[in-house]
Amino acid sequence: MAYYSDYLALDELLNAQHCESAKHGDAAHDELLFIITHQTFELWFKQVLFEINSVITLLHRPYVPEQDVATCLARIQRSNRIMEHLANQFTLIETMTPGDFMDFRSYLNPASGFQSMQWRILERTLGVPESKRVLKHYTEALADEHKRALDAATAGTNLFQALEHWLEQIPFMETETYAFWDVYRKAVADVLENDRAEVRTLAADDGTDPTDALAQIDANERGFNAIFETESYEQLRESGARRLSQRATLATLFISTYRHMPLLQVPYRLVDAIIELDKFVSVWRFRHAMMVSRMIGMRVGTGGSSGHDYLMQTTVRQRVFDDLTSLSSFLLPSKNTPALPDDIVQRLQFVNEQR
Amino acid sequence: MAYYSDYLALDELLNAQHCESAKHGDAAHDELLFIITHQTFELWFKQVLFEINSVITLLHRPYVPEQDVATCLARIQRSNRIMEHLANQFTLIETMTPGDFMDFRSYLNPASGFQSMQWRILERTLGVPESKRVLKHYTEALADEHKRALDAATAGTNLFQALEHWLEQIPFMETETYAFWDVYRKAVADVLENDRAEVRTLAADDGTDPTDALAQIDANERGFNAIFETESYEQLRESGARRLSQRATLATLFISTYRHMPLLQVPYRLVDAIIELDKFVSVWRFRHAMMVSRMIGMRVGTGGSSGHDYLMQTTVRQRVFDDLTSLSSFLLPSKNTPALPDDIVQRLQFVNEQR
Amino acid sequence: MAYYSDYLALDELLNAQHCESAKHGDAAHDELLFIITHQTFELWFKQVLFEINSVITLLHRPYVPEQDVATCLARIQRSNRIMEHLANQFTLIETMTPGDFMDFRSYLNPASGFQSMQWRILERTLGVPESKRVLKHYTEALADEHKRALDAATAGTNLFQALEHWLEQIPFMETETYAFWDVYRKAVADVLENDRAEVRTLAADDGTDPTDALAQIDANERGFNAIFETESYEQLRESGARRLSQRATLATLFISTYRHMPLLQVPYRLVDAIIELDKFVSVWRFRHAMMVSRMIGMRVGTGGSSGHDYLMQTTVRQRVFDDLTSLSSFLLPSKNTPALPDDIVQRLQFVNEQR
Amino acid sequence: MAYYSDYLALDELLNAQHCESAKHGDAAHDELLFIITHQTFELWFKQVLFEINSVITLLHRPYVPEQDVATCLARIQRSNRIMEHLANQFTLIETMTPGDFMDFRSYLNPASGFQSMQWRILERTLGVPESKRVLKHYTEALADEHKRALDAATAGTNLFQALEHWLEQIPFMETETYAFWDVYRKAVADVLENDRAEVRTLAADDGTDPTDALAQIDANERGFNAIFETESYEQLRESGARRLSQRATLATLFISTYRHMPLLQVPYRLVDAIIELDKFVSVWRFRHAMMVSRMIGMRVGTGGSSGHDYLMQTTVRQRVFDDLTSLSSFLLPSKNTPALPDDIVQRLQFVNEQR
Repeated sequence: MAYYSDYLALDELLNAQHCESAKHGDAAHDELLFIITHQTFELWFKQVLFEINSVITLLHRPYVPEQDVATCLARIQRSNRIMEHLANQFTLIETMTPGDFMDFRSYLNPASGFQSMQWRILERTLGVPESKRVLKHYTEALADEHKRALDAATAGTNLFQALEHWLEQIPFMETETYAFWDVYRKAVADVLENDRAEVRTLAADDGTDPTDALAQIDANERGFNAIFETESYEQLRESGARRLSQRATLATLFISTYRHMPLLQVPYRLVDAIIELDKFVSVWRFRHAMMVSRMIGMRVGTGGSSGHDYLMQTTVRQRVFDDLTSLSSFLLPSKNTPALPDDIVQRLQFVNEQR
Repeated sequence: MAYYSDYLALDELLNAQHCESAKHGDAAHDELLFIITHQTFELWFKQVLFEINSVITLLHRPYVPEQDVATCLARIQRSNRIMEHLANQFTLIETMTPGDFMDFRSYLNPASGFQSMQWRILERTLGVPESKRVLKHYTEALADEHKRALDAATAGTNLFQALEHWLEQIPFMETETYAFWDVYRKAVADVLENDRAEVRTLAADDGTDPTDALAQIDANERGFNAIFETESYEQLRESGARRLSQRATLATLFISTYRHMPLLQVPYRLVDAIIELDKFVSVWRFRHAMMVSRMIGMRVGTGGSSGHDYLMQTTVRQRVFDDLTSLSSFLLPSKNTPALPDDIVQRLQFVNEQR
Repeated sequence: MAYYSDYLALDELLNAQHCESAKHGDAAHDELLFIITHQTFELWFKQVLFEINSVITLLHRPYVPEQDVATCLARIQRSNRIMEHLANQFTLIETMTPGDFMDFRSYLNPASGFQSMQWRILERTLGVPESKRVLKHYTEALADEHKRALDAATAGTNLFQALEHWLEQIPFMETETYAFWDVYRKAVADVLENDRAEVRTLAADDGTDPTDALAQIDANERGFNAIFETESYEQLRESGARRLSQRATLATLFISTYRHMPLLQVPYRLVDAIIELDKFVSVWRFRHAMMVSRMIGMRVGTGGSSGHDYLMQTTVRQRVFDDLTSLSSFLLPSKNTPALPDDIVQRLQFVNEQR
Repeated sequence: MAYYSDYLALDELLNAQHCESAKHGDAAHDELLFIITHQTFELWFKQVLFEINSVITLLHRPYVPEQDVATCLARIQRSNRIMEHLANQFTLIETMTPGDFMDFRSYLNPASGFQSMQWRILERTLGVPESKRVLKHYTEALADEHKRALDAATAGTNLFQALEHWLEQIPFMETETYAFWDVYRKAVADVLENDRAEVRTLAADDGTDPTDALAQIDANERGFNAIFETESYEQLRESGARRLSQRATLATLFISTYRHMPLLQVPYRLVDAIIELDKFVSVWRFRHAMMVSRMIGMRVGTGGSSGHDYLMQTTVRQRVFDDLTSLSSFLLPSKNTPALPDDIVQRLQFVNEQR
């Protein structure tokens, strides 16, 4: 092949900045910054989509070899560093003041909004459900051609589904003589019973009323039970409080609890990295919403509901992997963790360390 | 004076990490990270408070010499870099997994929440009003001694008040023959009238109905008028929609409009830097809320309203300088900006460049 | 104009990634990351070049209005944030391991080196002199067409020259009754004489030999004198120890000394921002050299002098504004700074504050 | 335990900033920034030392269980993020201008240099050999008490030694019928022979002289041979060109070559993370050297060799793990990698995936 500049297609790339203000004979110095900021965002979105799609392909198979889990982890971690870097990139566009933006803003109509097709594809690829989407009309307002492109690009399995599928295959949670959920549930019950005894002793010593503290423990217990009982779990799913299947949820709890076992170390890191991905996507949205609010203020005349408000709602409501994040509530300290049966411990080792 | 280690008080500093888990005979490796993360946050909060208090002192005087405005700018910009750095510092504590946190979390009771006195002082020093405070009971729950310390540390003028005071003193907005607001309001009316004409022409050409577009322009006009008329402005303040005085608001609009004049360059940058400060404080809150949600999940048993939800609300609701941020809505492009009278142009020059 | 994707030319942009490994039927997952990293570098280099060229245009005029100095400052500060961001961007490409790079490295020949034309243009635009260039053969090896393009893009004034020109015009250093250099030199002499007296007193009290300490003070004095005397200054320039003209050097010292005067605040910040630019360009080079050393190790078979060694030398030797940086050695503390004459103080004020 | 402020020892921490300028009745605003920057550096150095010492303890044992390798990896990665964060922290102190530093610099004597004991301990703990130390007199100038403290803190095994020890234990490189180095050397010879054939064919087609290209291949071959032959390897060690033992070097090559095998994934990442640690320590040194050069310029009167020059030399010369970094030169593309014998493949699997 030829030279660096050919390889990188620099002729196309470096001639793809077309300032509208100059076309209107009113060149605004800061428009180039605006263009290049968005172009580099788009290039990096392409990279993140490439990584996540490769992870979906690796995870969404009948059997996922362990060495591929490490590959998935590396690719999600890379995506996280990219999204973190892009969130910080808002600092660059924010060297433009609102006054300077005003000088070319009107030339951008109707393109001034953030109408990135790749961002929408990214959201669907992660698994943002249409029901959680804050701005449904964004999609509705798309040209038919773009709607079809969006649908085509996201017709396959999304990351949420691929992860759920992979988690459901984790084979170590039950044997003929062992079921993780029963053992774990018993450990939880012991911890809570111990908590109750402590509360009662303390109340007796102090002469105080233990009612509230005990009610809190009862509420905790109901929270745990809702995870372990299939019927109540399905109610949570129907109400929208949970989205992940019960089996995948319990598998995540299993992996988190026995995260130090050789075979579970990388899976635990993968789940954690996906929580991080969800976070950095949210951080990007938050920085974006802050930038928009500074650049264009509140839209004059609308009754309190500005573009900025909508954007801010997306930062939290459109998170995809809350079910993983919220599982922290259900972890036990190491000292209360029930021991694994020997045969499962064996299967979680390396051949070389087998005893 | 003596050596580096004495100067920096390293003996005290490096012996001030007391791990609770070790005291309980159950040493958790990651507790040191937890402590040092919070200690470095606190040290940098001290620095930010020092900078902001010095800015308040400089601005809250009957007359503020121009050279001190540049000093204020440098100190707010420094505070911004610190807050940006601290927001990124959450990346370090997030190398701790929720499972590892669980191993020492219980030893931190009742200190596990983020109960930073300096953070509360910082919020009050910026000017977060008690009415916007999301978690009022945080302050109510303080020990009397701490309440008094908090009140004592924030008894003086806050940054919001000092900035408002300084903006109100800007002396260039009116002369015997000139009033900025009248001229600006006329320029706005011209722009809007022009917009209406364009809408009508377009509608006539297309055969479409201009009603909605014209209503939008009317709404814009009402938004502008509400800023310029004293009575409607005071209604906005009473309703809580605006907090800054009308005079300070118009001064900000004046500075922003004529930001290229030598005497207004630094004031414009100062207003912009304070918008940035508000932003970075929000970014810090957002990263904090995300970290908490990952570490402790949702509190089991509470009816949907978790600590995380409260924290997330503070990121937006507790912003202090929204009135500055939202002024972007009222800027005009350079080409529509009315010219300044010559005598004011003269006063905004350097002696050396006087014509 | 049309839509976001047209405005940003996303069709060209997002279809400009051509993986060589795939063309050879041996697709390597990480090649896309390699391409996008370099493409985003190039896009941002275009932005930095645009900013710096605009600063050169503003500074290289017979008279530079003060308000344009603030514009220059904002654009250099923006360039600094971009270069800082790009230095951190190496973290993204470094998520690729050397082993993974090896899988497509051979397909990049002969383009595998960093042969960025824009980077060379940037170096010349800053003012890297050919004499300081570490890798002269890089330029010699260029195709004739590229050599001509490089020469054409850098035929004009560079930033070093424009800055020197602007500094030489600073008009406040002398009047009929005042010459900054004489007054400053006397202040330096007083400080050094005081130092000598202290050394002698201390030696007499301790019974120690003051010879070495006095010799150090003499050496300091010679350093100062070499700046103030035209003949010795020109010797420094001929030897390559200094590059900036004596007048520009003294102007920088004047600006730094009286940096709190209203008219000098922004010029001082501009000089400081250019020192920062030099630094961030060096930091970028350093991060680049570290990345190369990790990816390709040392070139096998060459006698110790690897590509990495050359790159590392460029980080320090190719700095352009060392003369500004090193002036810190010649500053006096505020308490030893000689007062300015009243007529100059007047000229450094705003009209509005004139007394 | 008690409250947040007690837990974090905030009374000691926030009262440990003692400004020398204020003690001299000449308070300089920026001294607090100087102190807090260095104090937060020191707190984070404590954390990094804690992590690295824990890794040394885990690695320097007769047998290192695989699950502990993942723990080591997490702790080195955490150290890397901390060092990266600290390198960026120089941006904060650099908001202080050289002029403002000059106002309190003289009060810091003799403590003005960077005399961090923890930094020296960190360098020794990583394994910087005394022979590579640029500034030997720094250590010689220490008070006896500090020398003893330094020696005591670094009396044990350093990270270089612990890593070498662990690498030497890797048990998969040879069996009765297999020796990694023989197989790998043959693969290298095949690749080079193929290169030679290509060169000759090309030369015959073009009518050019293949001598130089063939000489380069010969040089490559000698480079490879020097690694594989014990005698020549020992010569490299004696000359200082290599420091790691031959066995550890070959183990690193083995791990890198078969990095996709389940049992080698985490070890490969660990070696890579340690290369990153070396890099970030260098980046910190570079940023430190740049900061010093801006703050104090070149020392007047010394003949060209300034403190800055020394600091800059340390950035490259005091790297510890160059032997790991340079191994990239010896990797082969996947397509040329020799296959592993079946019995070794088996031992590198998980029990659960055993065939």
